[in-house]
Amino acid sequence: MALTEAPLLRALAGDRPDRTPVWFMRQAGRSLPEYRELRVGTRMLDACLTPDLAAEITLQPVRRHGVDAGIFFSDIVVPLRLAGVEVEIEPGRGPVFADPVRTAADVDRITAIDPEGLDTSAIREAVRLVVAELGGTTPLIGFAGAPFTLAAYLVEGGPSKEHLRARAMMHTDPGSWNRLAGWLARVSRTFLDAQHAAGASAVQLFDSWAGSLSQADYCAFIKPHSAAAVDGIDAPVIHFGVGTGPFLADMRLDGRADAVGVDWRMPLDEAAAVLGDDVTVQGNIDPALLTAPWPVLEAHVLDVLRRGSAARAHILNLGHGVPPETDPAVLTRIVELVHATPVEDPAVTAGVAG
Amino acid sequence: MALTEAPLLRALAGDRPDRTPVWFMRQAGRSLPEYRELRVGTRMLDACLTPDLAAEITLQPVRRHGVDAGIFFSDIVVPLRLAGVEVEIEPGRGPVFADPVRTAADVDRITAIDPEGLDTSAIREAVRLVVAELGGTTPLIGFAGAPFTLAAYLVEGGPSKEHLRARAMMHTDPGSWNRLAGWLARVSRTFLDAQHAAGASAVQLFDSWAGSLSQADYCAFIKPHSAAAVDGIDAPVIHFGVGTGPFLADMRLDGRADAVGVDWRMPLDEAAAVLGDDVTVQGNIDPALLTAPWPVLEAHVLDVLRRGSAARAHILNLGHGVPPETDPAVLTRIVELVHATPVEDPAVTAGVAG
Repeated sequence: MALTEAPLLRALAGDRPDRTPVWFMRQAGRSLPEYRELRVGTRMLDACLTPDLAAEITLQPVRRHGVDAGIFFSDIVVPLRLAGVEVEIEPGRGPVFADPVRTAADVDRITAIDPEGLDTSAIREAVRLVVAELGGTTPLIGFAGAPFTLAAYLVEGGPSKEHLRARAMMHTDPGSWNRLAGWLARVSRTFLDAQHAAGASAVQLFDSWAGSLSQADYCAFIKPHSAAAVDGIDAPVIHFGVGTGPFLADMRLDGRADAVGVDWRMPLDEAAAVLGDDVTVQGNIDPALLTAPWPVLEAHVLDVLRRGSAARAHILNLGHGVPPETDPAVLTRIVELVHATPVEDPAVTAGVAG
Repeated sequence: MALTEAPLLRALAGDRPDRTPVWFMRQAGRSLPEYRELRVGTRMLDACLTPDLAAEITLQPVRRHGVDAGIFFSDIVVPLRLAGVEVEIEPGRGPVFADPVRTAADVDRITAIDPEGLDTSAIREAVRLVVAELGGTTPLIGFAGAPFTLAAYLVEGGPSKEHLRARAMMHTDPGSWNRLAGWLARVSRTFLDAQHAAGASAVQLFDSWAGSLSQADYCAFIKPHSAAAVDGIDAPVIHFGVGTGPFLADMRLDGRADAVGVDWRMPLDEAAAVLGDDVTVQGNIDPALLTAPWPVLEAHVLDVLRRGSAARAHILNLGHGVPPETDPAVLTRIVELVHATPVEDPAVTAGVAG
């Protein structure tokens, strides 16, 4: 099978492949014992920047679960680390920056770094190792953080609940905000380009915190920068955010997104109705149900498949990342179920219109 | 002026008082230096259960800002503490329970406590002190946590991002879930009844975490219990949740809510269109803008007033609680602006329909 015939890439192109492609956000990571073993003694960002380690971690879930895509093991702040920004991932907390970017002078300082000049050799090397191992049949998805989510960490200096400081900057000093977000778009674009150039077949832009915004703020202060991060990229684009139901159509980025990822809150048939019939949907198993008894989870997965069939094409995923405490056997079983369920099966497609 | 003529109570009754009533969620608390001084050496729940302390803290923002209502200083877990549940509020983290309620046996154990038998004397005493001091002109709002938000803490054992364990219980063991949520509704109802009996003129049900739910889950597993918490109460009811835009109309609790609180994400004119013309709206200054230069914040407040005039009546508030680092002078200035802006002023009402 040629890579272009891989179910994931066919679904992104708008075809309905014979089986629904499935992968899981954060499939490479803490839910796997083989990952936890490999990571002992290595800090997160060091692991991301060690090519053979990042490659092996990327491949682990593909081997174990038989998913239809690898997702490159990295972190949205990796290109910022490559740009010389002092950042660490603190276990159980998230990215922490030594110098938060809060003032116009802070923005001047950070945006003086040339984002196209980053040394992405470690990233490209890791991607090449993965792609060689995948053997031309399973696609690799590259990814990057959307400018707002990166800014939410960078302005605050670390994780926050409602991202007040980043959201304040938009209104208080829109000039600085737009310079910062525009620079972050170029940083993420450089990261995406490196992964794509080294062999990633598709890319996903993650806007984990976009759900803290009103639609008006999203459209005025975020969307142009997210669009710039993927504009003209020569690979299919998946755009995912959490809590973006109230402005889901804007997540299409005016046609730049080939697929829109939907979190667990909005049924995929409703999402498809909002998004239109010229974009693929991705999602949206509720991560809370991964601990439910199998018959409950199975019924939920079949319901997600049924609703997903209302879109032009559907990539099965969770509605957010794999929780660290997930039993990996459950993920494997979901893949088996999805692959055993033909897209045309009347039991699946019945009731789509209802 | 009789208390029934107070702008807050007139707005809750559906009238348009001469001036828009204004209060702030978490107005009693960490943004005030006089609060931080009073709290030195006293743990949060101990402060809540010391009548003269709770009363003084409740009164501080009313004196300082001239708001149109006091909100009783307490915490949603106070009635659980009164029920003998081992809980503490950890500074910077939130409520932490010694024994999370995760299994059917855990649910059996906790629901064996009679929620109507709680000793609420400290609550009633504090409310009486506040109401005496307010002198019959400024109403006091009592409050309680909605069953889902309480359960989100109780099942997890503390704060969590996406409340996976509580949401899993709904689907995994709906019987236990409904027993737990039903019991929590009675606990919160007992708390509301105590505050109302002692003189609170209105009550607010807080569902801070409801936004993590799909509409389907909200309606199936939450709404009946939230409705039970306020059903038939002899006081106007305000129902507030964060991120509830996708099921805002359900927050009316089938007419049991006299006002629905709206977070900063959804403009009040859109909210009013969804909610209908027989309910009052409350909200929704974006807390992120409290640090903006005054002209930016002023324009935002006037925009909120303008949009709020699309509802049958409007209570000005923030879209979430006052951030601890807020300059209290900014809150006072907002109150002055709101009170100086007549509801009928053409500059305010122009463009409402647009």
